Amino acid sequence: MSKDKVQIFDTTLRDGEQVPGCKLDTKQKLVIAERLDNLGVDVIEAGFPVSSPGDFKSVEEISKIVKNATVCGLTRAVRKDIEVAAAALKYAKIPRIHTGIGTSDSHILHKFKSDRNAIIERAIDAVSYAKTFVEDVEFYAEDAGRTDNEFLARVCEAVIKAGATVLNIPDTTGYCLPDEYGAKIKYLKENVKGIHKAILSCHCHNDLGLATANSIAGVINGARQIECTINGIGERAGNTSLEEVVMILRQHPNLNLDTNINSKLLYSTSQMVSQKMGMMVQPNKAIVGANAFAHSSGIHQDGVIKNRETYEIIDPEDVGVNESSIVLTARSGRAALAYRAKKVGYELTKVQLDDVYKEFLKFADRKKEVLDDDIHEIIVASNLNIESLT
Amino acid sequence: MSKDKVQIFDTTLRDGEQVPGCKLDTKQKLVIAERLDNLGVDVIEAGFPVSSPGDFKSVEEISKIVKNATVCGLTRAVRKDIEVAAAALKYAKIPRIHTGIGTSDSHILHKFKSDRNAIIERAIDAVSYAKTFVEDVEFYAEDAGRTDNEFLARVCEAVIKAGATVLNIPDTTGYCLPDEYGAKIKYLKENVKGIHKAILSCHCHNDLGLATANSIAGVINGARQIECTINGIGERAGNTSLEEVVMILRQHPNLNLDTNINSKLLYSTSQMVSQKMGMMVQPNKAIVGANAFAHSSGIHQDGVIKNRETYEIIDPEDVGVNESSIVLTARSGRAALAYRAKKVGYELTKVQLDDVYKEFLKFADRKKEVLDDDIHEIIVASNLNIESLT
Repeated sequence: MSKDKVQIFDTTLRDGEQVPGCKLDTKQKLVIAERLDNLGVDVIEAGFPVSSPGDFKSVEEISKIVKNATVCGLTRAVRKDIEVAAAALKYAKIPRIHTGIGTSDSHILHKFKSDRNAIIERAIDAVSYAKTFVEDVEFYAEDAGRTDNEFLARVCEAVIKAGATVLNIPDTTGYCLPDEYGAKIKYLKENVKGIHKAILSCHCHNDLGLATANSIAGVINGARQIECTINGIGERAGNTSLEEVVMILRQHPNLNLDTNINSKLLYSTSQMVSQKMGMMVQPNKAIVGANAFAHSSGIHQDGVIKNRETYEIIDPEDVGVNESSIVLTARSGRAALAYRAKKVGYELTKVQLDDVYKEFLKFADRKKEVLDDDIHEIIVASNLNIESLT
Repeated sequence: MSKDKVQIFDTTLRDGEQVPGCKLDTKQKLVIAERLDNLGVDVIEAGFPVSSPGDFKSVEEISKIVKNATVCGLTRAVRKDIEVAAAALKYAKIPRIHTGIGTSDSHILHKFKSDRNAIIERAIDAVSYAKTFVEDVEFYAEDAGRTDNEFLARVCEAVIKAGATVLNIPDTTGYCLPDEYGAKIKYLKENVKGIHKAILSCHCHNDLGLATANSIAGVINGARQIECTINGIGERAGNTSLEEVVMILRQHPNLNLDTNINSKLLYSTSQMVSQKMGMMVQPNKAIVGANAFAHSSGIHQDGVIKNRETYEIIDPEDVGVNESSIVLTARSGRAALAYRAKKVGYELTKVQLDDVYKEFLKFADRKKEVLDDDIHEIIVASNLNIESLT
């Protein structure tokens, strides 16, 4: 039986870029967009066109170069936003407008100073208006995670009638537990009239460390799109990590779900985004962290030597990690350096590592990437008389 | 109704320290152990005494200084390990020996070249022997995540009979989905004779980004201890993050579960461990990342300014972070700019704000972050002759 496809909606360039210090220029965004297209994402959310002239231009330029993915632009439920997004998407092969409004009582009362019926009217108007520009209109019910299910179902029903093709159910504050988020998707799947005409989409935030688990609970319960970013970047604690949800579906074939992602490009894409944004990936990050496939304890090493499958469930090559692909830069920590030094034959004590690390930083400041051969040089330069074991 | 307590078993100094480049000396470990004791963890796993003289000494010294927590030492199901651990724990007020053996077929066949009955015999022997030294004996069924439930229940029953007070059910490879891990705990709770005499413990790894969700699924289904580390450090993609599980239970009062952790010490403890180990915390790390409480997008900033609860569910002060710092970037809206301008002394009219905002966008497109000092410059550049009030 062929597996059900889960669409990967990448928002690295929109929700991901919305981070202090991570702003990219159009040229950098184009390089990342091209890579995302090659990686196999189904949708690239390229920006929020009305927000600034730079964002408009980025969405426009990305629309010109993307070959396979849908290109999507964000708007509020405001006609001006929608017009500007449509203009920015003019050159896209497959354009999508992503519009929406807050639906939780907290948002309706405090942010919009409005009421539920007026919010539904604005939602319908936004979707109908977007439909006059593009066929593919995604609607987000902001703060859906804290919106009561019955009202949320009413909103969904109304926007499907108005022509929405995708319903984004964001856990905007990252508050939901997986069971709760899964139950919300299930409720919508079972109670929204016309739900077969639209795809339910999971958009989860990681404030409590649950974005990945919530997204997986969503697709188990009937959602067929996940909104995510490379390395899980994004505001506050970030968004769902693309690499995590992709590999969970791949490692759990009995879920009978898969994506179009070429997983062998995950590690290099992670590195590219981390370097361009200056957002480091911690060594213990799942799938793409420098230590993700490193074993150090005696017990574990012994197990791995006897049978890799004893401790490792993902073949590092499946995500594009091989010995030479762990790149050391000035942002790499001691852990990464020690691991790499060991690989090339140096077992460093904590004190030795401190000295070698100082030398490494000087070296890495001069050179962009530190390769295996460089490590020998760094250790010689640190004057410690450490001999290679190999 | 008073909440059920979930014990926090911190293994930062054992499973957490088992990382390339993160080895600490005894002095550093003592500082962290003292902090963990103040933080309110119930158990400190201080090391694996038989593994090295340094580890022995660390466990011994930590045992002497810890005032409130149980101090625990790891062993294999080997008599020599247990004797050495007991010796290292001699000075502990409340000592615990943590012994165990692999129970999955993969471990039994490849690692031990043994069979199920022989493994149960070794488990019983280890627990009985440990009981001759200490009252509190925790048993781990390594790779329980991939052990079939029926056999796992047999193992648990046998070690409870032998005197085990805690049953650790590790998802050693980080493979389980939350539903699956929760169901495993539920199965044991319902099928192990004598289970009321022992506490079930969750020990999850983060290879697929699910350690936190799995641990929460575990306690929802009856476990009453979580094994975790500060910042989620540990081999490969690390262990469950202490700060995440603690704050999930606190933010979800309807689960009716809580811990003894003083959450106001979470942020500083995270910083301490990160610095001592040289293991950086990525900015988008939940709860303790540098950006965890930072807002930069215009939509979000506007919401936060109108009502903090619109976007933030955790009060930063509850985890020891002073202010949810609002960072201005090219994505920031007018409301955020006006708010910040007011903070530095400019009360802008709506019309003035429009002009200043245009200048701000030009400035922000050039500079990644706009700081307070820059606001004066922007306002001067906008030629409005607005005077600062301060």
